[in-house]
Amino acid sequence: MIDTYRARSEAAREMDYLPGNVKKKEKAEMSEERAVQQVLARYVRGVDARDGAAVAAVFTEDGRVEISYNNSGKSEPLGELVGRETIAAAVSQMMKPHSARGWSHHTTHDHIIDVNGDDATLDSQFVVFEVRGKERPTAGWPDGASGAQGTVQPIEAGYYRPILRRVDGVWKITTLRITHSLPMAFPGQ
Amino acid sequence: MIDTYRARSEAAREMDYLPGNVKKKEKAEMSEERAVQQVLARYVRGVDARDGAAVAAVFTEDGRVEISYNNSGKSEPLGELVGRETIAAAVSQMMKPHSARGWSHHTTHDHIIDVNGDDATLDSQFVVFEVRGKERPTAGWPDGASGAQGTVQPIEAGYYRPILRRVDGVWKITTLRITHSLPMAFPGQ
Amino acid sequence: MIDTYRARSEAAREMDYLPGNVKKKEKAEMSEERAVQQVLARYVRGVDARDGAAVAAVFTEDGRVEISYNNSGKSEPLGELVGRETIAAAVSQMMKPHSARGWSHHTTHDHIIDVNGDDATLDSQFVVFEVRGKERPTAGWPDGASGAQGTVQPIEAGYYRPILRRVDGVWKITTLRITHSLPMAFPGQ
Repeated sequence: MIDTYRARSEAAREMDYLPGNVKKKEKAEMSEERAVQQVLARYVRGVDARDGAAVAAVFTEDGRVEISYNNSGKSEPLGELVGRETIAAAVSQMMKPHSARGWSHHTTHDHIIDVNGDDATLDSQFVVFEVRGKERPTAGWPDGASGAQGTVQPIEAGYYRPILRRVDGVWKITTLRITHSLPMAFPGQ
Repeated sequence: MIDTYRARSEAAREMDYLPGNVKKKEKAEMSEERAVQQVLARYVRGVDARDGAAVAAVFTEDGRVEISYNNSGKSEPLGELVGRETIAAAVSQMMKPHSARGWSHHTTHDHIIDVNGDDATLDSQFVVFEVRGKERPTAGWPDGASGAQGTVQPIEAGYYRPILRRVDGVWKITTLRITHSLPMAFPGQ
Repeated sequence: MIDTYRARSEAAREMDYLPGNVKKKEKAEMSEERAVQQVLARYVRGVDARDGAAVAAVFTEDGRVEISYNNSGKSEPLGELVGRETIAAAVSQMMKPHSARGWSHHTTHDHIIDVNGDDATLDSQFVVFEVRGKERPTAGWPDGASGAQGTVQPIEAGYYRPILRRVDGVWKITTLRITHSLPMAFPGQ
């Protein structure tokens, strides 16, 4: 799905720069704040697809993720991922894979963005929903079944506070600070 | 509620174009991306109000809705609505009406918008919350009752991916692709 | 956390206005619509921190909050807060404090914004999530525990419809109309 979006988007962009394209002049520049916000939108798309490469692509080469838990005002560090490769591996290999008919929706809210030249900060809330679909019986859904078959459950919440830098005209995350509002257990720790 | 909003909004707009209105010059153009995003905001307001006419109004005359379920990466078509009238009828007549003291909130998140002249695409996540209020006992709420009385339950999630066209300066949806993250049961199917 | 954000943000702003700052020219003006939306983002940050002063700061001196419940289309008034001091006191003293390892996330969605000179209206949905973290056992999380330890529960939903005015270049809320989609019980009433 992510790839489909990209393909379409690249194509649109390319078209825009074809010589003599009459639409070129009409294409207004997107505001820097929206461009910054869309970096986070691509981050959550990649995380939900468990696509490590897509997530790593929104970071600078030396990008990092700093994860902590806000324990009633006291910050407790949970972990750190340094460098694109480590970030990609964590998403593809360390995140729990989706169960059959499962999906997740990492959603972000109430962005506060501050752009200053080639530097920017973003402060947003996040809520993660876990989706588990029921299996359709071979005889079809039972009589009276209507609407969505399965559950949508909020399981995590907190704040994403990325710091970004514009490199060759493209906003990238240099450091993503993730503050969880819930404590986290890691197997084997 | 939708109507109240509209009335206020029309009035504001009209005021803006009164001859000699000193505020006219101060009214900056809204960015195309925000205008596109607000089309989706009006769509969900209409859906939550089960107001078929309000929903149809955000589509072009030949607008369509394509609904599918993403079954672990495999897209399964669920249905299609073609034309404003069909869309209006589906919202007003086919969607489950709210129960007494019931409401819904269709919410959208993490928009990725690409505007190209008079064409645009939007990619967003959605989560639907079902709200069911308790009935206030004739003797009033019981001792100790405090805060919201009822439940807010996420019941659906997925992606809205509308394609839009600007017609006479107004963005309209030509095709709304809805991808559910949960399977759907339709009575009688 | 709010304070940290602010400190950083003020510093960034100050830097921007230092004489001879090469970045000054690059700092584009944020759109009025985004500035309006960020007022609401600061409001919810303040509410979640139960920080009455931070919440009062987004209102004009004579700002007010009008709270009602939408009972299946019939609006029932729930209360009114008039003036910054009353608003600050309500947030700091009347809102339920967070439990140990508890937090809340007031989130807002699908903003419809209308800016007209120094006046603006915003119409958004809101969902409130209550977060309750588990206490980590002294012997550590039990075998098999993995991921977030605790619950994220949507408990309230409705509409925020603030009216704003720009005073000395800063958007402030003059009236915040809160419409709950659930009835509310107040102890002792």
